[in-house]
Amino acid sequence: MKHSALLTDLYQLTMMAGYYENNLNETATFELFVRNYPPNRNYLIFAGLEQILDYTLNIKFTEQELEYLRKHPTFKNIRDEFFDYLKDFKFTGDIWAMPEGTVFFPNEPVMRITAPIIQAQLLETYILSMFNFQTMIATKASRIVSASQGRQIIEFGSRRAHGPEAATLAARASYIGGCTGTSNVYAGHKFGLPIYGTIAHSWIMAFDSEEEAFEKYYKSYPDNTILLVDTYNTIEGIKKATRISPEIKGIRLDSGDFYLLSLEARKILDDAGLQNTKIVASGDLNEYKIKDLIEKGAPIDAFGVGTELVVSADAPALGGLYKLVEIEKDSKSIYKAKFSQNKITYPGKKQVWRFLDNNKLVKDIIASAEENIYTQQNAIPLLSQMVKEGKVLSPLPNINEIKQHCLNNLIQLDKKLLNSDSTTNIQIEISKSAQAKYNQLKDSLI
Amino acid sequence: MKHSALLTDLYQLTMMAGYYENNLNETATFELFVRNYPPNRNYLIFAGLEQILDYTLNIKFTEQELEYLRKHPTFKNIRDEFFDYLKDFKFTGDIWAMPEGTVFFPNEPVMRITAPIIQAQLLETYILSMFNFQTMIATKASRIVSASQGRQIIEFGSRRAHGPEAATLAARASYIGGCTGTSNVYAGHKFGLPIYGTIAHSWIMAFDSEEEAFEKYYKSYPDNTILLVDTYNTIEGIKKATRISPEIKGIRLDSGDFYLLSLEARKILDDAGLQNTKIVASGDLNEYKIKDLIEKGAPIDAFGVGTELVVSADAPALGGLYKLVEIEKDSKSIYKAKFSQNKITYPGKKQVWRFLDNNKLVKDIIASAEENIYTQQNAIPLLSQMVKEGKVLSPLPNINEIKQHCLNNLIQLDKKLLNSDSTTNIQIEISKSAQAKYNQLKDSLI
Repeated sequence: MKHSALLTDLYQLTMMAGYYENNLNETATFELFVRNYPPNRNYLIFAGLEQILDYTLNIKFTEQELEYLRKHPTFKNIRDEFFDYLKDFKFTGDIWAMPEGTVFFPNEPVMRITAPIIQAQLLETYILSMFNFQTMIATKASRIVSASQGRQIIEFGSRRAHGPEAATLAARASYIGGCTGTSNVYAGHKFGLPIYGTIAHSWIMAFDSEEEAFEKYYKSYPDNTILLVDTYNTIEGIKKATRISPEIKGIRLDSGDFYLLSLEARKILDDAGLQNTKIVASGDLNEYKIKDLIEKGAPIDAFGVGTELVVSADAPALGGLYKLVEIEKDSKSIYKAKFSQNKITYPGKKQVWRFLDNNKLVKDIIASAEENIYTQQNAIPLLSQMVKEGKVLSPLPNINEIKQHCLNNLIQLDKKLLNSDSTTNIQIEISKSAQAKYNQLKDSLI
Repeated sequence: MKHSALLTDLYQLTMMAGYYENNLNETATFELFVRNYPPNRNYLIFAGLEQILDYTLNIKFTEQELEYLRKHPTFKNIRDEFFDYLKDFKFTGDIWAMPEGTVFFPNEPVMRITAPIIQAQLLETYILSMFNFQTMIATKASRIVSASQGRQIIEFGSRRAHGPEAATLAARASYIGGCTGTSNVYAGHKFGLPIYGTIAHSWIMAFDSEEEAFEKYYKSYPDNTILLVDTYNTIEGIKKATRISPEIKGIRLDSGDFYLLSLEARKILDDAGLQNTKIVASGDLNEYKIKDLIEKGAPIDAFGVGTELVVSADAPALGGLYKLVEIEKDSKSIYKAKFSQNKITYPGKKQVWRFLDNNKLVKDIIASAEENIYTQQNAIPLLSQMVKEGKVLSPLPNINEIKQHCLNNLIQLDKKLLNSDSTTNIQIEISKSAQAKYNQLKDSLI
């Protein structure tokens, strides 16, 4: 996942050239946040930080890329020095962020970047695409996992993801959000995720009979055979599966009425003495369907979830924002904000304080970064410094630590919030100091 | 965009090992198709072929990847020879496909792969993720472009795409579907797409005043300045923009009521003698909103479309399928099909014939590959052989040729089909021969 420095919107580069030409090298602070809850969501899980930091700290324009820019008509009035600057581009700023896997809410900055404005500007597009996607998927995964009440959820969606890289990132984010693993082998290799697989219809059809297909697979994978039973006739398929001896690990239902079929399947398996053989269901599942199946008592042990998970079908885009909040000019902080209709931002560097009671989240306060009064109230500051002058301060957590951190955060939420139909919202306050900065700035501009 | 051979579902590799262990090296044919129309769609545009062929013909397992597989518990009963086979993996099959950019309909195979089953199996996941995503985006783009009635649509969605690669692929597919260009610089460089950009709020906020921000940008880009006017107050912003002399190329509205603001903007610009200054609108647009703005007469010259385009928000996943339809065994063709509930497939290699009258699409017939009677009726076969024994037969078209082919295909559609609210459907027939194969196979299995 080596990513080009050109993975950005053209206007970032034209603005950078403009800053360069105007000798605008003030230190700017940008914050990354989400303005509103996406549909059907009442919390979000921060994901994508590892990839964002990797990109930010290793960004490099190749000669070929610089040549492309130099020759592009857009830049015809820009001096060559700008491209020399890009050639030596290196991020030298500071980054504060919530740990990956943290539960967060609208208007809370999850990341704060302080760097010369020309550097911070370049990163916007990449940071947003990585943050928006992984956060959206981790959040969706956690909803599906909550609905499954302890049954395993395996991410099966590579073929429906938005291209091969999206498939890989979706596998990672799903794991952070609580999935047990993925079918994506590359994601397994790259990120150390558990990988899972059964068999496809093509295997069944490649043999002269369903029985032969079942037996041949079992011979190669005696400890790990989950037979797909719906190629021709599901009930007949299940009966054939029971005849594979001594016993298969599971069967997979991939079409039809999962409630009725799972009841029948359990009965057929149990009658054949296969109490330990599991039932896996896959096919157009989501948190609502899984919740319904479980509430009705469908004896399904694990769910493979694809499409609806990897594209977050009911909320397929997250509107993350990366906004300028402060500029240091002549050693003075100048606060910045946007007052466009329904698109306001809060000025100044901020910190988010989390108030817990008995390990339950009571409220968050979004405060100015310099406010420290909340430590006395035992609140926890969610953002900590991760990068100083372009260098990572301490090693990042591994994927299992991120997943565990996410789980710890989810446990702090009221159970009502984790219900897929929940309309409950956590209380988020803006501190008086942060609100005052906003009001002052607005008054000064009118 | 070098892609790992591991970008596949685990079951493809377990099935491959199973085929290998069972000496199953029959030649199989898989076909790629879509079973149903996605919501609000009545045609689809085939995209992603170039990336699919590139992957298929260059797939290579690295030593490190083979080591990962060899050591994975899943494969503990699989002999080492299988991994040696993977080490030398090379696609040696044939591929027939529609040209990229072709308009197609449900159940029509857009691609047909004939190869030893172990080879064809590996490719499924990658092919589907690439086909599903680019096809979905090209189709969405064409809907938005149709709604714009000739006004330019620029793809602006990188930050909301499903990661950086999805952003790049979305830019490519949007261009095929009719967009004028993209803001994504990497996509511009890699695929030769026109790139566009304006300025962001952060540029405006980086200066002491909006006037100064406007002037400084114009100085660097005198031929290409499109000023963002809504940072503080849109009408005031437009007025300030008119004072930049001699004249800016355009202004961009990014919030508020585009209809009312564009009318006011046009009046302010015209009154200032800036009849040539264009109005660009961006922000949560889609085909319906654009259609509405144009029907009401909003004087907007170009639209930047992001989120809804790059995630195809109303239909964020395409359910493309890659299904086994035929196996050659002892020089005999054995037809294969799937009869799962609501998930049937038609057996045998197929061809799609298009019937045109006066360059208008009248109907398509999905026929068995060996049926050639339709040539006498002046129908056009849509699939042609592109790869023979692992080698591309002739150079692929460039991106502009693909875009033109798509446009030529869209012109053949009844105008009613191109209306974003259309419920009209093209007539798609299954030939008698193809239907008979299905019936015979079904009877033989019952």
